[in-house]
Amino acid sequence: MTEIRVGLLGLGTIGTGVASLLCEHRDLLSGRLGKPLKLVRVCDRDETRGKDLDLTGIDRSYDANEVIEADDIDIVIELIGGYEPARSFVATAIEHGKHVVTANKALIAKHGEELFQQAAAKGVAIGFEAAVGGGIPCLKALREGLAANVVQSVYGILNGTCNYILTKMEHEGLSFETVLAQAQELGYAEADPTFDIEGVDTAHKLAILAAMAFGAKIKFDDVFTEGISRITPDDIASAKELGYRIKLLGIAKPHDGSVEMRVHPTLVPLEAQIAQVSDSYNAVQVSGDYVEHAMYFGRGAGERPTASAVVADVMDIARAMPDGIGYLASPMGTPQAMRRDLPTCPMEDVRSEYYLRLMVKDQPGVLAAVTRILGENGISIEAFIQKERHRTQAVPVVLLTHVVREGALKAALEAIVALPSVEGDTLMLRIERFGA
Amino acid sequence: MTEIRVGLLGLGTIGTGVASLLCEHRDLLSGRLGKPLKLVRVCDRDETRGKDLDLTGIDRSYDANEVIEADDIDIVIELIGGYEPARSFVATAIEHGKHVVTANKALIAKHGEELFQQAAAKGVAIGFEAAVGGGIPCLKALREGLAANVVQSVYGILNGTCNYILTKMEHEGLSFETVLAQAQELGYAEADPTFDIEGVDTAHKLAILAAMAFGAKIKFDDVFTEGISRITPDDIASAKELGYRIKLLGIAKPHDGSVEMRVHPTLVPLEAQIAQVSDSYNAVQVSGDYVEHAMYFGRGAGERPTASAVVADVMDIARAMPDGIGYLASPMGTPQAMRRDLPTCPMEDVRSEYYLRLMVKDQPGVLAAVTRILGENGISIEAFIQKERHRTQAVPVVLLTHVVREGALKAALEAIVALPSVEGDTLMLRIERFGA
Repeated sequence: MTEIRVGLLGLGTIGTGVASLLCEHRDLLSGRLGKPLKLVRVCDRDETRGKDLDLTGIDRSYDANEVIEADDIDIVIELIGGYEPARSFVATAIEHGKHVVTANKALIAKHGEELFQQAAAKGVAIGFEAAVGGGIPCLKALREGLAANVVQSVYGILNGTCNYILTKMEHEGLSFETVLAQAQELGYAEADPTFDIEGVDTAHKLAILAAMAFGAKIKFDDVFTEGISRITPDDIASAKELGYRIKLLGIAKPHDGSVEMRVHPTLVPLEAQIAQVSDSYNAVQVSGDYVEHAMYFGRGAGERPTASAVVADVMDIARAMPDGIGYLASPMGTPQAMRRDLPTCPMEDVRSEYYLRLMVKDQPGVLAAVTRILGENGISIEAFIQKERHRTQAVPVVLLTHVVREGALKAALEAIVALPSVEGDTLMLRIERFGA
Repeated sequence: MTEIRVGLLGLGTIGTGVASLLCEHRDLLSGRLGKPLKLVRVCDRDETRGKDLDLTGIDRSYDANEVIEADDIDIVIELIGGYEPARSFVATAIEHGKHVVTANKALIAKHGEELFQQAAAKGVAIGFEAAVGGGIPCLKALREGLAANVVQSVYGILNGTCNYILTKMEHEGLSFETVLAQAQELGYAEADPTFDIEGVDTAHKLAILAAMAFGAKIKFDDVFTEGISRITPDDIASAKELGYRIKLLGIAKPHDGSVEMRVHPTLVPLEAQIAQVSDSYNAVQVSGDYVEHAMYFGRGAGERPTASAVVADVMDIARAMPDGIGYLASPMGTPQAMRRDLPTCPMEDVRSEYYLRLMVKDQPGVLAAVTRILGENGISIEAFIQKERHRTQAVPVVLLTHVVREGALKAALEAIVALPSVEGDTLMLRIERFGA
């Protein structure tokens, strides 16, 4: 009964959670494995970190090389975050024949391909469940549980901060700025929240999900990304009146030999299961040709849920280890050599229903002009709201369109914005309908 | 690149779905595995079955032994259902060194322990994801994805027929009997629906989930089981008025060194995620000390979703196979030798809030008598509804209690039912609150 020895890089919030879990549940985990699982080395160059942990019997170092090159380590957990030095450390660990587990979505989204290649060449496993959807575990479900399906779509609420902000805006009728400021005060949003609110974090996760779903290479730079900062409480109220809730979704779908990959605020029907996912919860909905619709829901972030996913990967590797990592040889669900270089569908070719919010001067003929432009571009209107009337100020008008090519909608919108009676901020949101 | 050869027993609805999937997606599955996956033999003793399948190149036999003893088979899929001859066939297949995949919840709930033991002794894998929650996949999530957690509770909507009936009763205000008859006509319910509506099917699945969650042996006979046939549209309406929806839940929780395992109609808060699971959908919610709350949702039954889960198990085994089945050596998540014989908590010791529906004659002093009996048994009332009044006929009174030991509630209820002014059918339902 060989013991499994683990080294940990990074003692920030997640690292502390993982170290605590491995120590607190050592007997439980070892029992489930049928062999001892031990955290033997931890490293953080910041001396102040990890002070609250009981590290009795664990080697605490300040130099990552003492972990990634150590002969007595089987699995290296990388919880430093960001691109560098995380990337170099992971590469070195693989080079030294270590299995690697990471929660680093940016690293996998950006450098996953080279790391997978390197891991395959060295015959080591690389686990990154914690990179997407926190503790859910959605990558395992997609890669293994749904392995028999042609995937038809993946929808994800993948950023807890955005979902929290949108939920609060809806429930309390507050502006984006006010809720963001509150979230920052409570520690739910970062001091610099750009990565979250502009959709970049969601795009990292979607790029990984899309590649896994379609057997494709990860193409983070191709993900269309639009954040939630332009959504107003009025938009949320108008959407609700029309039967929708606004969620920041990551969406991946096959499209004529290419893949749609897009992150944007999206109107989803109020009765859809994914519309019920509130606060900081995450969810991933996958549709497949045999499974129909499945949804996985849970805490997408936080010290303890993320630790749950990181240690699940460690357990997976420990279970596979004595026999070699045959079971874990394809971290993306398809052998490295067979993963395709699929093109990304340009946004102009995406077909969708749309929500348009225009600010118009309440003059005779304005709506006639708007609807004429839409009609000329082959766009028909499904619903329409104009509530307020004002002689001098512009008032909001909300339109829902039937399905149309995005290129056509944008052309129409350009002409509409140029109308003298349309002024101020124009907002275009996409609508998604899906089973369940 | 060895090919993986599969034999299939049973060409009923699920068997047909699995055979279709394996044929239709042969290239896709082989691509994901990096080696050919082939259905080579199918068997059903009924000659009329499988007629619509294109079985070109596949050996069609009428004798199961030609599959389970064949030298050219690596994995046997059992889709006959029921206890016998399924059990003997699976045992013989294992004896012949075949890996086994089954969708048979009754078989696993009742004879899983002996089969796991036998499989461990022979070093073969046994997969049964399709036995619980159809295509979700919830067993994989619990066993692997949440492997780092002490499980605090498992809640499942595990029977699509019951969930469909309860949803229809709520939406259309129809009686249980009417909806059941409609469901039978539509083929959503069996001609003999006892296993579904009396909770036996849910109990099979819960017994498996509970054993997996707590590292315990499967004890199907210990599961407390109560069906949905006594629920009326009035109960559903009263529950809703009080902020609850009635769902048939399977519930497993640790309880002072024992395990609560119970299947019964349950009031769940309307805003809970699990309350949103409607129609024939299934869902499993797991709470763990690190993951907090996670929920897995999807089609719990049906030809194609079940086939998705069966073939996922086949893929798992095929992935692990060249190196031996180290990764799959513990089908219940804990090595056979370390799984405990945990006692089951008697229902009298369960603590819960309760919904009581009494039929009382509208006479002075009746409610005083009822509340006095509750008070004497240490039971306090949280909410109360009496709507109709009638001079001569009994009218329904609904009470919600605070948390109380079930033994105490039953004692009180016995005394209440003995009151001369209480007559007719009395209903006691349990309430569950949980995060998310």
